[in-house]
Amino acid sequence: MADYLSSAASNLAKNASEAVQQVHPYLPKDAIILNWAANEWSVPVLLTYFFGLCAILFVSTYFIAKRVDKTLTSGELTTIMWFVLSGCIHLFLEGYYATFYATLAAKQTFLGQLWKEYAHGDSRYLSNNSFVLCMETVTAVFWGPGCLATAAMIMLRHPLRYPIQMIVSMGQLYGVILYYATSAFDEAVNGVTYSRPEFLYYWFYFVIMNAFWTVIPAWLIYQSTVQTAKAVRKVQQMESTKKVL
Amino acid sequence: MADYLSSAASNLAKNASEAVQQVHPYLPKDAIILNWAANEWSVPVLLTYFFGLCAILFVSTYFIAKRVDKTLTSGELTTIMWFVLSGCIHLFLEGYYATFYATLAAKQTFLGQLWKEYAHGDSRYLSNNSFVLCMETVTAVFWGPGCLATAAMIMLRHPLRYPIQMIVSMGQLYGVILYYATSAFDEAVNGVTYSRPEFLYYWFYFVIMNAFWTVIPAWLIYQSTVQTAKAVRKVQQMESTKKVL
Repeated sequence: MADYLSSAASNLAKNASEAVQQVHPYLPKDAIILNWAANEWSVPVLLTYFFGLCAILFVSTYFIAKRVDKTLTSGELTTIMWFVLSGCIHLFLEGYYATFYATLAAKQTFLGQLWKEYAHGDSRYLSNNSFVLCMETVTAVFWGPGCLATAAMIMLRHPLRYPIQMIVSMGQLYGVILYYATSAFDEAVNGVTYSRPEFLYYWFYFVIMNAFWTVIPAWLIYQSTVQTAKAVRKVQQMESTKKVL
Repeated sequence: MADYLSSAASNLAKNASEAVQQVHPYLPKDAIILNWAANEWSVPVLLTYFFGLCAILFVSTYFIAKRVDKTLTSGELTTIMWFVLSGCIHLFLEGYYATFYATLAAKQTFLGQLWKEYAHGDSRYLSNNSFVLCMETVTAVFWGPGCLATAAMIMLRHPLRYPIQMIVSMGQLYGVILYYATSAFDEAVNGVTYSRPEFLYYWFYFVIMNAFWTVIPAWLIYQSTVQTAKAVRKVQQMESTKKVL
């Protein structure tokens, strides 16, 4: 009888602990995500708001920048648009996660629900993952303001534009490379998968949405490198001409 | 009797699994480090070899660089010495870890023993930690050759020197910031400590040895920023003078 009771109690405890751990739709199934509450808004509503806000910000940056300085080239304009949009995403969306990561799973705010939806593509955002939290905190605190500063420097044609663009774009690129790589390594070597396999979750949220922060920063790092080398070469030529004279 | 046997068997299994997991001197005690073998060389021998090799490399870089180009300033010389030493550490020491991480705990090679000694200050190097592995792989593959390329460009006074110095130093600085931050976060929030508390392990290996890769890259990023802005400003002035003429 004592044996039966103790085995029943241990089964109960085991089931209870599994129930606590598994009340969520994310992978891995045993990820510890406490106090998770299903989103109150539907996915189309969340995504329409998010992409709608991005589009409004993107387009209004274009018109404001063009109005402030009519001589901006189309290259300068699109780069400003990228840095304003990217900076606001770092500051507000990623800043929200870095601030509220510990209680995100229960949140019903717009940004809270957005993260709970995104976490289908990467559950590390809800499970106190140290790499994702630290990388996102640096991104929100440094690359967010850094993006806006770069946009302002392009408008002003400031001599600090290319070095600051380089620092910010390197931060973004290295962050996202480690973001993809750690996930791939944990899957391949440690057998832990953070993304659900559905197209929307894996391909759209995890792969495609983050890919913008590989391709565009890589191009901007290349641009900074070429423009800096060009300026240094001109100064070197100027100085050697002076010496000859 | 059956009960007694099954409980004895389960205790045996439990002890055996604990024994497999805990035959190592690292923290956390339950870190899974398989096939660990104690180092065959003593700590003074390992450290003397390592710092001796570093000193030989550092000093011979000085003499070779000075011989190749007598006009190098002391600032250029020390920067070349830093990039050659740092590049070799990335390529050989960190490249060794990135290549052999899976079997490191059993190795008795010089570099294998060096990592097993260092792991007292950070056990993540022996436990398949995805962040440390990915960051070190990027460091070995990109910042290693990048350091040597920067050293060569300083010798040649090449126009690409400052942008490449910026890319490499940003990679080093961001990597080490995330390295410290993830460890601090796992300790503060997740209650997992990777470093033994002894002065040699925590302060010397973990804090001080890595601190070189915060202070020096931060200074070199600052230098690249200032030098780039200076060159761009000169070119802007030159072009506006031309327009006026």
